[in-house]
Amino acid sequence: MILVDFDPNEGYPRLGLVIEGQRVVEVGESPNGTLMSLILNGQHRMDDLREVALTGKPIINGRERRVFDLASVRLHAPIRNPRSLRDFYAFEAHVKTANANRGRDVPPAWYDIPVFYFSNPNAIFGESDTIPYPRKSKALDYELEVACIIGKQGQDIPADAAEDYIFGYVIMNDWSARDLQKQEMSVGLGPAKGKDFATSLGAYLVTPDELADRHTGRVGVYDLSMVARVNGEERSRGNWADIYWSFGQMLERASDGVTLYPGEVIGSGTVGTGCLLETTRAQGPWLQSGDVVELEIERLGILRNAIL
Amino acid sequence: MILVDFDPNEGYPRLGLVIEGQRVVEVGESPNGTLMSLILNGQHRMDDLREVALTGKPIINGRERRVFDLASVRLHAPIRNPRSLRDFYAFEAHVKTANANRGRDVPPAWYDIPVFYFSNPNAIFGESDTIPYPRKSKALDYELEVACIIGKQGQDIPADAAEDYIFGYVIMNDWSARDLQKQEMSVGLGPAKGKDFATSLGAYLVTPDELADRHTGRVGVYDLSMVARVNGEERSRGNWADIYWSFGQMLERASDGVTLYPGEVIGSGTVGTGCLLETTRAQGPWLQSGDVVELEIERLGILRNAIL
Repeated sequence: MILVDFDPNEGYPRLGLVIEGQRVVEVGESPNGTLMSLILNGQHRMDDLREVALTGKPIINGRERRVFDLASVRLHAPIRNPRSLRDFYAFEAHVKTANANRGRDVPPAWYDIPVFYFSNPNAIFGESDTIPYPRKSKALDYELEVACIIGKQGQDIPADAAEDYIFGYVIMNDWSARDLQKQEMSVGLGPAKGKDFATSLGAYLVTPDELADRHTGRVGVYDLSMVARVNGEERSRGNWADIYWSFGQMLERASDGVTLYPGEVIGSGTVGTGCLLETTRAQGPWLQSGDVVELEIERLGILRNAIL
Repeated sequence: MILVDFDPNEGYPRLGLVIEGQRVVEVGESPNGTLMSLILNGQHRMDDLREVALTGKPIINGRERRVFDLASVRLHAPIRNPRSLRDFYAFEAHVKTANANRGRDVPPAWYDIPVFYFSNPNAIFGESDTIPYPRKSKALDYELEVACIIGKQGQDIPADAAEDYIFGYVIMNDWSARDLQKQEMSVGLGPAKGKDFATSLGAYLVTPDELADRHTGRVGVYDLSMVARVNGEERSRGNWADIYWSFGQMLERASDGVTLYPGEVIGSGTVGTGCLLETTRAQGPWLQSGDVVELEIERLGILRNAIL
């Protein structure tokens, strides 16, 4: 299923189910009926929604629901206030290039454990939202990533069991101010101001069943191409299946001694070639005010943001 | 004022005001009447509470409130689900020793900007809670810190104006698994699993007016001693006034291009000598199961946790 929070110009986002790729069935009918409320309190309703997805008939509990053209509604980020935002560093090609730019090899520990950092969960942007250029930066970059949304509370989750805890997947852009990031990372605590100003999430939250025919056999890994374009020109191309650490392994790591909660966001890290830091060998040119960045992942849609 | 969330053995925490150092006036009278709800929605009531603190009379809006002996109630962490948890690195002595342990000088950028990382906001422990020893670690450590709690939403807050945005201060223990931390930090993204399993907060949330006579003149910096004891033996001693970056400067940094929200927690980083990593030159011995760690900051009380 493809789930969205959408607003048919009535003033608030509510849960919708995308059918036939171009229409959305209104599932949530009040400001409380969001995708997050489905994840937190409504997963017993998932079978009803699957029925709609399967038949294409907008009927839930015997009652016909409103249907809108996707092109006529406003799409919001599917998760706007997660309890946390973790971002991993799971694609080897990106890690190799990022380290080569600093004149070093990949640290050996990278091959031993999937590593992540916590970022700011309170600066989530959605499809078509404008991203503010950080005022102290001259080196804004995008990062092409896929994220999973936790669907079930758990701790010490084994990698093999992790699919039970994943509600779905979404495109993620981990916007990065390379100059701020480089300065603060020299102190050793990782990125903070370099990334805390914005993370954007694609409008489509796609459940695993929708991707089953592209499953690679590794937990939470699918054969789906990933592309980034700046002002319409392709700048990045990779594939989710190239990931070194699976989402199963990432969840095992994140949940070791720590409870994961429904709605939390876990990013993959950047796919190989998935940012200007890589493709320009850290020289830029970087993004400019007015640029439009599109991230596209097969089956997950397109995430488009302009910069101002 | 000294504010707490306490439970007089009735099954839920509610807001209380400490008077005469040993009694607590019940302010919140339902499960919704917590310290967090005061911060989010009830700051118009602060004058009423100040009146109680000043007179010692437990009367609010003309109605007498219940009073309990502090020793007879359970104290909870004052903030249990913050929207985020940031931790700075603001005491020079700690940074010098931490870097010396890695055989290097303090990175020059440390003197240019106050640096922080985001940690897990979903693993907050309170006074008397038992801290679980991380199962993959053999090197558990405490960190003696003071934290501020944000009281007012803001972005791009100048250091000089930051006191308007600080609701109060609390003792913080940033529990750290040194072996996990060392391994993951070699990859460059900072600490995550080394610190995500537990952060404990002292029971007393102390408003700035309560500390006015110890204000140093720097924004959010007070002349108050800080001590840590392990199993009753003093292991750390410092003073809040030794901090290099003030809470004013930390809030300016954190809020640059980013909105801070009421209830968010911002830690100072470890005071000089405030952890075993420093005092044992990274050699240990580390904490063991069964140890009891007490952090004490003048005026902010004592935070005591056993390890299991």
